Amino acid sequence: MKNVAIIMAGGKGERFWPMSRNEMPKQFLTLADSKLTMIQLTIKRISQIVNEEDIYIVTSKNYEEIIYEQLPNIKKENILFEPQRKNTAPCIGLATAVIKKRYGDANIVVLASDHVIGNEKLFINNLELAIECAQRDNIVTLGIVPHYIETGYGYIELGKKDDKFPTIYTVNKFVEKPDYETAKKYCTSGNYLWNSGIFICKNSTMYNSVATYMPKLYESIRKIYEAVDTEKFETIIKDEFNKIESQSIDYGVMEKASNIYVIPGNFGWDDVGSWLAIERLNEVDAQRNICEGNIVSIDSANNIIINKTNRLVATSGLENMVVINTEDALLVITKENTSNIKELIKKIEQDENNKKFL
Amino acid sequence: MKNVAIIMAGGKGERFWPMSRNEMPKQFLTLADSKLTMIQLTIKRISQIVNEEDIYIVTSKNYEEIIYEQLPNIKKENILFEPQRKNTAPCIGLATAVIKKRYGDANIVVLASDHVIGNEKLFINNLELAIECAQRDNIVTLGIVPHYIETGYGYIELGKKDDKFPTIYTVNKFVEKPDYETAKKYCTSGNYLWNSGIFICKNSTMYNSVATYMPKLYESIRKIYEAVDTEKFETIIKDEFNKIESQSIDYGVMEKASNIYVIPGNFGWDDVGSWLAIERLNEVDAQRNICEGNIVSIDSANNIIINKTNRLVATSGLENMVVINTEDALLVITKENTSNIKELIKKIEQDENNKKFL
Repeated sequence: MKNVAIIMAGGKGERFWPMSRNEMPKQFLTLADSKLTMIQLTIKRISQIVNEEDIYIVTSKNYEEIIYEQLPNIKKENILFEPQRKNTAPCIGLATAVIKKRYGDANIVVLASDHVIGNEKLFINNLELAIECAQRDNIVTLGIVPHYIETGYGYIELGKKDDKFPTIYTVNKFVEKPDYETAKKYCTSGNYLWNSGIFICKNSTMYNSVATYMPKLYESIRKIYEAVDTEKFETIIKDEFNKIESQSIDYGVMEKASNIYVIPGNFGWDDVGSWLAIERLNEVDAQRNICEGNIVSIDSANNIIINKTNRLVATSGLENMVVINTEDALLVITKENTSNIKELIKKIEQDENNKKFL
Repeated sequence: MKNVAIIMAGGKGERFWPMSRNEMPKQFLTLADSKLTMIQLTIKRISQIVNEEDIYIVTSKNYEEIIYEQLPNIKKENILFEPQRKNTAPCIGLATAVIKKRYGDANIVVLASDHVIGNEKLFINNLELAIECAQRDNIVTLGIVPHYIETGYGYIELGKKDDKFPTIYTVNKFVEKPDYETAKKYCTSGNYLWNSGIFICKNSTMYNSVATYMPKLYESIRKIYEAVDTEKFETIIKDEFNKIESQSIDYGVMEKASNIYVIPGNFGWDDVGSWLAIERLNEVDAQRNICEGNIVSIDSANNIIINKTNRLVATSGLENMVVINTEDALLVITKENTSNIKELIKKIEQDENNKKFL
């Protein structure tokens, strides 16, 4: 059975404003110390076990142009546009409908377009193992062994070891983002993994799971399936996405199904969820600063200072700050407050004249 | 005898970088909550007791164009260019030479081009009193009653009251910028005033004082006097300024002469010596921020944020910071570090490619 990749690339990436923009979210930026953008790196990585012609992208129509520009080798018919953002379940459901129609069945690797993988070899090994395990109609998720206390991720509680695959576990339960004390307990217990959101299964397994656990969504997905590669496809998607409720695949399927497995992984995964990730992914200088671009600093330590312009940025006395200077917008924020960027964006949106900066 | 003003406008105003520039220092900026620039305000103020045709500017050739642009009504022959910066004594000496030649004698009011005066009425009253007292061949300085502990100014120790003018005092001594403990003592003693640098005397008094206390400088000033309004003027100035040593008028004359008087003033004087002055001179908002330009802030208090561009500046979590965004340079600095801007400028100068930002 063929391997097919489903890459979710519809995110808005607001947490990287002002570098990410409405028309240019995080997945299309070069954040990971590479000349390739996040999505280009994702494609390159997955190409090791999936043929280019079997890579699918699910994204928003807003990003059509930039997708074609950044991914000229991906077949246009493999780029699926969601008319509206309805979280991960409808996005994955849409892809399974297309894949079912075109392949009958396939092994699907579902992943985000904007994560970093430090160790590709281990990652690919895990995927191969997961594909093997998935042949028994399981859904196999990749969990990440926590290496610090993080409240920004969901967690997966390990069950018992699988008989046939001794490095694969059943899943006791999925848990939402915990508070700090709970996260601390999870991270020290050895029984919890970070939920990377990456999973592997047969396309039929997921298609049927949606039918079982999300019957309302399935109604729409079935209609979309009928329309795949016909003239009605775009209209049907539009109509159905109008009706479909927002739902995550974790809540809709993973937490309800019993055939869920997890592989504890250690492949340097990072979801690059905020400016602070830049510190984890890049080398700091002697003053523990990350500096990019034309910057002159005195007495400044532990900062992230990025100057994407030809202008000069000068700092003195800064500590634990994030300074992002782009062509038309400047962000100056304490590291502590980086999680509030969405709030800042809401405030910027309130002024009609400032919308152009988002 | 005519009143003549000598306005010193040669300063570099580095402490206001990046708003002030090599080609556009502080005196040519609008910092004081007005549409007029600092030097325009100075001229307007002094015009109350000096005819426009009797206002003299001593400045650097670098600022020729901007002076003509900002001060179209000042006679060109009244704008004196120092070929090099040699502190205040040579600057004032040059002006006294020109005034002696053109007027014989006059009352001179010597002042900086980039100070703020809150209460003009009181200021003018003080000047008129000083001019009266100066007729006895005194040099009369304007002192400022300290209203907070400031280590950035020189101080004047009061002597005894004058018999004829009961609001004028003799000067015991001039003291350089003190450390914090000394400044605190001065400010609470009631015996010390800030040295505003503004003084009034007859032109002949100052010309003769230079002859007496600064004989080397006088040699040059005498030659310049001979050349005033001749073809040789510019060449002679150039030659003499090459020889002249840098010296302040305080050190060269004030601290040595015995006919120095001081008027304790309370006219809202501020030398606008650093970004922190902006807080003293402008109204703060509810979060005690000074914000100018397109700025969106959350959880930011006690900051000075100035955006001189059409771009957007967004902040969150900032406290006690100064953010100055101009067309081609950005400064982000703690209030505590604003006195280090000169150091920052030195570091910027080290890179040939960055000199254009100064």
